[in-house]
Amino acid sequence: MSGSSIGVLFKVTTWGESHGAANGCVIEGCPPLIDLAETDIQAALDRRRPGQTTSASPRREPDIVEILSGVFEGKTTGTPISLLIRNQDAASSPYDDLRHVFRPGHGDFTYFKKYGIRDHRGGGRASGRETVSRVAAGALATKITGSAGISVLAYTKMLGGIAADPDSCYPSIELAENITQNRLYCPDPDAARRMEEMLEEAKTAGDSLGGVVEIIVRGCPAGLGEPVFDKMDAELAKALMSIGTVKGVEIGAGFAVAGIKGSEANDPIGPKNFLSNHAGGILAGITNGEDIVVRVACKPIASIEKEQQTIDQNGQMTTVSVKGRHDVSVIPRIIPVCEAMMQIVLADHLLRQKAALR
Amino acid sequence: MSGSSIGVLFKVTTWGESHGAANGCVIEGCPPLIDLAETDIQAALDRRRPGQTTSASPRREPDIVEILSGVFEGKTTGTPISLLIRNQDAASSPYDDLRHVFRPGHGDFTYFKKYGIRDHRGGGRASGRETVSRVAAGALATKITGSAGISVLAYTKMLGGIAADPDSCYPSIELAENITQNRLYCPDPDAARRMEEMLEEAKTAGDSLGGVVEIIVRGCPAGLGEPVFDKMDAELAKALMSIGTVKGVEIGAGFAVAGIKGSEANDPIGPKNFLSNHAGGILAGITNGEDIVVRVACKPIASIEKEQQTIDQNGQMTTVSVKGRHDVSVIPRIIPVCEAMMQIVLADHLLRQKAALR
Amino acid sequence: MSGSSIGVLFKVTTWGESHGAANGCVIEGCPPLIDLAETDIQAALDRRRPGQTTSASPRREPDIVEILSGVFEGKTTGTPISLLIRNQDAASSPYDDLRHVFRPGHGDFTYFKKYGIRDHRGGGRASGRETVSRVAAGALATKITGSAGISVLAYTKMLGGIAADPDSCYPSIELAENITQNRLYCPDPDAARRMEEMLEEAKTAGDSLGGVVEIIVRGCPAGLGEPVFDKMDAELAKALMSIGTVKGVEIGAGFAVAGIKGSEANDPIGPKNFLSNHAGGILAGITNGEDIVVRVACKPIASIEKEQQTIDQNGQMTTVSVKGRHDVSVIPRIIPVCEAMMQIVLADHLLRQKAALR
Amino acid sequence: MSGSSIGVLFKVTTWGESHGAANGCVIEGCPPLIDLAETDIQAALDRRRPGQTTSASPRREPDIVEILSGVFEGKTTGTPISLLIRNQDAASSPYDDLRHVFRPGHGDFTYFKKYGIRDHRGGGRASGRETVSRVAAGALATKITGSAGISVLAYTKMLGGIAADPDSCYPSIELAENITQNRLYCPDPDAARRMEEMLEEAKTAGDSLGGVVEIIVRGCPAGLGEPVFDKMDAELAKALMSIGTVKGVEIGAGFAVAGIKGSEANDPIGPKNFLSNHAGGILAGITNGEDIVVRVACKPIASIEKEQQTIDQNGQMTTVSVKGRHDVSVIPRIIPVCEAMMQIVLADHLLRQKAALR
Repeated sequence: MSGSSIGVLFKVTTWGESHGAANGCVIEGCPPLIDLAETDIQAALDRRRPGQTTSASPRREPDIVEILSGVFEGKTTGTPISLLIRNQDAASSPYDDLRHVFRPGHGDFTYFKKYGIRDHRGGGRASGRETVSRVAAGALATKITGSAGISVLAYTKMLGGIAADPDSCYPSIELAENITQNRLYCPDPDAARRMEEMLEEAKTAGDSLGGVVEIIVRGCPAGLGEPVFDKMDAELAKALMSIGTVKGVEIGAGFAVAGIKGSEANDPIGPKNFLSNHAGGILAGITNGEDIVVRVACKPIASIEKEQQTIDQNGQMTTVSVKGRHDVSVIPRIIPVCEAMMQIVLADHLLRQKAALR
Repeated sequence: MSGSSIGVLFKVTTWGESHGAANGCVIEGCPPLIDLAETDIQAALDRRRPGQTTSASPRREPDIVEILSGVFEGKTTGTPISLLIRNQDAASSPYDDLRHVFRPGHGDFTYFKKYGIRDHRGGGRASGRETVSRVAAGALATKITGSAGISVLAYTKMLGGIAADPDSCYPSIELAENITQNRLYCPDPDAARRMEEMLEEAKTAGDSLGGVVEIIVRGCPAGLGEPVFDKMDAELAKALMSIGTVKGVEIGAGFAVAGIKGSEANDPIGPKNFLSNHAGGILAGITNGEDIVVRVACKPIASIEKEQQTIDQNGQMTTVSVKGRHDVSVIPRIIPVCEAMMQIVLADHLLRQKAALR
Repeated sequence: MSGSSIGVLFKVTTWGESHGAANGCVIEGCPPLIDLAETDIQAALDRRRPGQTTSASPRREPDIVEILSGVFEGKTTGTPISLLIRNQDAASSPYDDLRHVFRPGHGDFTYFKKYGIRDHRGGGRASGRETVSRVAAGALATKITGSAGISVLAYTKMLGGIAADPDSCYPSIELAENITQNRLYCPDPDAARRMEEMLEEAKTAGDSLGGVVEIIVRGCPAGLGEPVFDKMDAELAKALMSIGTVKGVEIGAGFAVAGIKGSEANDPIGPKNFLSNHAGGILAGITNGEDIVVRVACKPIASIEKEQQTIDQNGQMTTVSVKGRHDVSVIPRIIPVCEAMMQIVLADHLLRQKAALR
Repeated sequence: MSGSSIGVLFKVTTWGESHGAANGCVIEGCPPLIDLAETDIQAALDRRRPGQTTSASPRREPDIVEILSGVFEGKTTGTPISLLIRNQDAASSPYDDLRHVFRPGHGDFTYFKKYGIRDHRGGGRASGRETVSRVAAGALATKITGSAGISVLAYTKMLGGIAADPDSCYPSIELAENITQNRLYCPDPDAARRMEEMLEEAKTAGDSLGGVVEIIVRGCPAGLGEPVFDKMDAELAKALMSIGTVKGVEIGAGFAVAGIKGSEANDPIGPKNFLSNHAGGILAGITNGEDIVVRVACKPIASIEKEQQTIDQNGQMTTVSVKGRHDVSVIPRIIPVCEAMMQIVLADHLLRQKAALR
């Protein structure tokens, strides 16, 4: 296995399991002389922490990050940056019942088939806990993209089948402000209220909910993305689909392109900018200077208390009810993770474009 | 730029432009002792050739492939396989008018912003012509996946807003046969007829159409895919989104997961297999032994005769009507390209899994 | 910068500086189900520790390794293994005088030119301290190569211009035993005694010494190494030359091939094995089943007390005498580092060869 | 196998065998807007062509290069550049006798052990013929390094045990001129004459000769090379050792460092430059602005007419006398190959350094 790294020049390697000693990452290729303190990363981690909404798991991790290398006297040195986040509230005993049982919707079965061994506690490497490293790395990427004028914003567009009013969504000019008004980062307050109710109901029923997150990139210069396999949309799709919960990714008009004509889908070009944005900011895999618009579909949390049919490691039929401490939905905790993955890809391509030019 | 390679162990590097001398690819990592003749690849290329439907461009390329290396006495030797396909019917003069004008929906603008230079003829590197190399490489990948019992099938699920009857689609047992009954590879004959009419109308109107292709992988063993960034679904998403026309990718239930509960989305596990397939054959990024189900959204062809608003390289407003010889829809020609990208990813991960085990 | 990773399938990423909080590495691609405990790695680290000979620095680091991920109930899981070694005895104050002065023979000047910033304490990332991570990773690689029957042995062939008697060196059958008889891992006891005297003299003079290490690989199967750029000898040369102290690498007959004829240099082939080994176990970049024989030239330690001419960061001429706590020679501490780099390359190519076959 | 690519940003992938249809390479990452014509590459290929000296093979290849992609109207576009060189004078019949016999010193045995198949004609992929692609790619790299002020020069320092007078070698100011005075690129005319005599003798005896090539890089800026595994010296060592004939690489003082003290080996630093160059232009793996000095040991050509002991594919003892058309020494034809490999590494690191900075 060598799939734990992402990026060519800004390269992030994550390691760690849900119930191991720690999680962390190594970031190679960060340019020197960038101001970096643990507090910069901590702020991002705090946004991802559980316990803020009904939807979230009661596991309490302080998520204290330690910078182990690559920073000297408050500035990056150009050498690899190693980040460490200890696991402190990993209660493994609730998982003892699961030692020999495969949980539906979970990586148990596939990890066992792949490696012939599984870490039955939490989700092991497939756990959402792994995303703490992504968010930490994303905080560093944000320093690079931010200095190039790029910002990334993600929010809840749908949860449990309830959609935010399209008028409240991108490109509403109040979007950034409105999503701060509720714990679900949903720009439509009515929808947010109904989503919260749905979360309560699902929790009571021992069930879980899925949703859609929309991600907007502003200020991205034209010219990022590498033909032909490392197109910007291809790289973003991979980065986002690599989040365990994501089952679909679309750019700009996305699946709606199947129903419109070329004369509608093609964005006319004006002297200053494109006159519409069906392309979602990416043409032929290269950014065109418009806002990048991406949506991801998030599946319901796999771990539910509701009894489900399954088998044990001997292939015998049984049922399982996952107790543990689980979120009801990955939303809103997945939002900073989506932002982080976007930032990591953008930072990498900013550096790649510097090298691409004469 | 170094984005023209895909794969870690089965690695494909493509090169070539729409109106250059040739297109081709180098395939590294193909195991030795596989029977390989030019006819094996030619058959795949012939499926992709234009001119078979109303939707397709009248450009006539014989697409004769030449194997330049890596095969000795009819067998692969383990060394890089170089494939060459000469361009023969590239008529560049119709593009002279486009030399200083950016075509909406096209890579003209973004390539110019990226590189400061553009090849205005055809689509240059962003042209669909580049996919001839992908299909050639896919034919070789098919040899590897085929000997592992894997097969890939893609078909038209929607075109110009017209959807095939869900009952005719996967998992219908007549699917494979029915899609051979019409030129659009659509399993629903009624829908196929209406799609053809739509294509005629669009052609007459100087417009173009988008659609949805569904891709099914059968016989894939459990255990393929590398946590955490090189998950099988992440790798497939990148490979498919790297096709110029694709604006969305979804796996299994895809975007529909946003509206269902965990108790529905989780596929129960029976003694022999999973009892449903919302996961689309991939759990936690690793194949689970079920059919892999993927859908891609294809945008309408960007080059249309209808007049569109745009600018020239000096930023002056103007209009453009793209004459050339263009397809009305990428469907059905994109179908073998989708299959090829799937095959390339699967072949790479078969080899990676061999190396992953003790 | 993204040069801190080595290997394609068994991939090691190191991080950490001489006087930072810690050093460590992440190892991707280690197969699952390998027994691994911290004691396995500790034994290798202990061999590398300073303080055992006259030549070594008085800095005292316990070098306690902590396995942070990738191991569950004593076995590798196939996921990334993160190793952490805290720095405990890093006394930075002796370096205050060096803050603005470039030390001859050192990375000070080049790091500053590269990054515009330097960590003047110890050698920063260029310090020999970084090799602790290599030795830790090598201990894991040894598990993989060992189970394939491969063993690696390195020893001192020359130090301070004093050469071990050729008869005592490879292929002497007493080699393995004789090198354990003195602290310098030199198979010739007389030479070892004179080397020790040279070390004493150099220490007294505030000077340092270089040498030659020879490395022997036994039990390596034929067929490892990838044409054409990732030839086994090319990969070994890179891995060894990446050790800061190494200025030359040769395989088999090495530079002596310049003076012999083809009829001598070509090793005749007998029914069971090659009848001589000028090739050093590698033909056309692929192992041939014979012992692999490699030699590396190690330069004298750059940090010496003797006064040297140099400049400060303003380009003003000055002199420098490096006090700190420095080794007199990298020998013998470099020996386990050389072995580790060999093991890492061999483990990677064992996995690559598994994937290379049908 | 996936070892046929070199470079991270300026990436070269070669393909082709000695007696296949063609050889060639794909170069990814070449910046746009560089003037490039086939004549630029042809000049480099012509230097490498056989038939100019006694030492060279009588095989006559015109080595006509064709640029298949990546260049438009005489300028690079930033997309992959595909180069094709047809094999025209490959006479395979002399090799029929070798079909089942392993040639000593050759890749026959190891390729067969690796892949279970061999192309017995010429050297297959292990042939010196493969280097035609390296030289072609090097010609392109030279465009990039040249515009940064870097030049590379290689020459014969030793051949058949005869050494050029050290006074005639680097850093002699007449070096560049003197090496053009004879066909062996040797700066010492007397030595050159004796080398030619040695070549004649060896030819008559059906034998072959080895030698040493020294390579000098001038004008390289300080700061190139990536700690810690992709050090400049490590990358150069790999690139040079990947040439089939090379058995040793040393930088600056090289193996001589084993006999000198730190106070001699450390190059003092003056206000404008280093006051000596034992480091060979590289400190801690990063260029220091001085000339880069590298030497490689080249083994005698393996294919000789003299009878040698060997086995056939059934393991039966036999003898072999290789007739074919072979060089007597890789010198001087290897000289442009060494230069090309240096250029490729330097071009890659120039691009990497652009991306490494803020």
